[in-house]
Amino acid sequence: MKKFEEKTIQTETIYDGKVVKLQVDEVMLPDGNTSKRELIKHPGAVGVIPITPEQKIIFVEQYRKPLEKPLVEIPAGKLEDGEKPEVTARRELEEETGYTAGPLEFVTSFYTSPGFADELMYLYIADGLEPVKDPAIGDDDEFIELLELTLEEAKQYVQNNRIHDAKTNYAILYLETLEMCVQKGG
Amino acid sequence: MKKFEEKTIQTETIYDGKVVKLQVDEVMLPDGNTSKRELIKHPGAVGVIPITPEQKIIFVEQYRKPLEKPLVEIPAGKLEDGEKPEVTARRELEEETGYTAGPLEFVTSFYTSPGFADELMYLYIADGLEPVKDPAIGDDDEFIELLELTLEEAKQYVQNNRIHDAKTNYAILYLETLEMCVQKGG
Repeated sequence: MKKFEEKTIQTETIYDGKVVKLQVDEVMLPDGNTSKRELIKHPGAVGVIPITPEQKIIFVEQYRKPLEKPLVEIPAGKLEDGEKPEVTARRELEEETGYTAGPLEFVTSFYTSPGFADELMYLYIADGLEPVKDPAIGDDDEFIELLELTLEEAKQYVQNNRIHDAKTNYAILYLETLEMCVQKGG
Repeated sequence: MKKFEEKTIQTETIYDGKVVKLQVDEVMLPDGNTSKRELIKHPGAVGVIPITPEQKIIFVEQYRKPLEKPLVEIPAGKLEDGEKPEVTARRELEEETGYTAGPLEFVTSFYTSPGFADELMYLYIADGLEPVKDPAIGDDDEFIELLELTLEEAKQYVQNNRIHDAKTNYAILYLETLEMCVQKGG
């Protein structure tokens, strides 16, 4: 038995949509009482940190309906059924930026919001970028704009909240640590 | 008009629960076509990084039903109606660890999953910890266990995925950067 396991007594699927599925579970708590858990099922996602030969980072600006405002983020997307995260990462990189990359470098993975959702986010660094002649086309309801920023510029975007999401903030902090290491070594 | 704004044509509330509200919006895209957006409304949350006088970090282990397994995380919790994030942070710190802190230090904030949810996460560092005589009691359906780990130990937990969520992974990377600065300065 897993620590503090909450056994499912009953499951109800409230909504099964294009992106999320909402399920409400009645659970048995470790003390024998029962409670309800609201669970968002999500296919998982990737974020890609594309680094140009000039050491700039390619970002994507898009409108985020849940926030009712645009955000600047690293290219990202949902896993298709049974797709390996690295395959998703290459596909999204090409669709959103028009570039292919050399071997991707895995950075980390994390659950974005484990209290209510099972979305697992995989992060990769992509360099050795080359423009694709006929890039794959992304979703037809996605309107995006590309930005190339230096790390210093990106940190400014974090300061003024134009960059303001978990994967992108993590990515920038991670690139900062790489730069610190370079400075330490130099 | 905001860049790439998606104007709401129609809103339908599918579910209004204890933690999340699910809403499906029909939107007008920038090109005049329409699409549907599935939106999770969430009150927002805080994460607190409690540092003991011995420079250990206090973590909380709890079962995460969406993942069907326990995770080790920094103490965290949802904002109550109209509550300032710093107030939530102090409340959750006391409820989950039994400590109060000196002035909290704001680290950053980020949307956890802006593609489908509006949850905004605020991160704080808490030091100057003092045990509370009669700590406030948390939710009665929360079963948690405390762990005190060094930063090196926490990095091991990240390696083996016992620590595996956005706020906690970010917190550990952030503490690493502080330590790097100390090493650089020393």
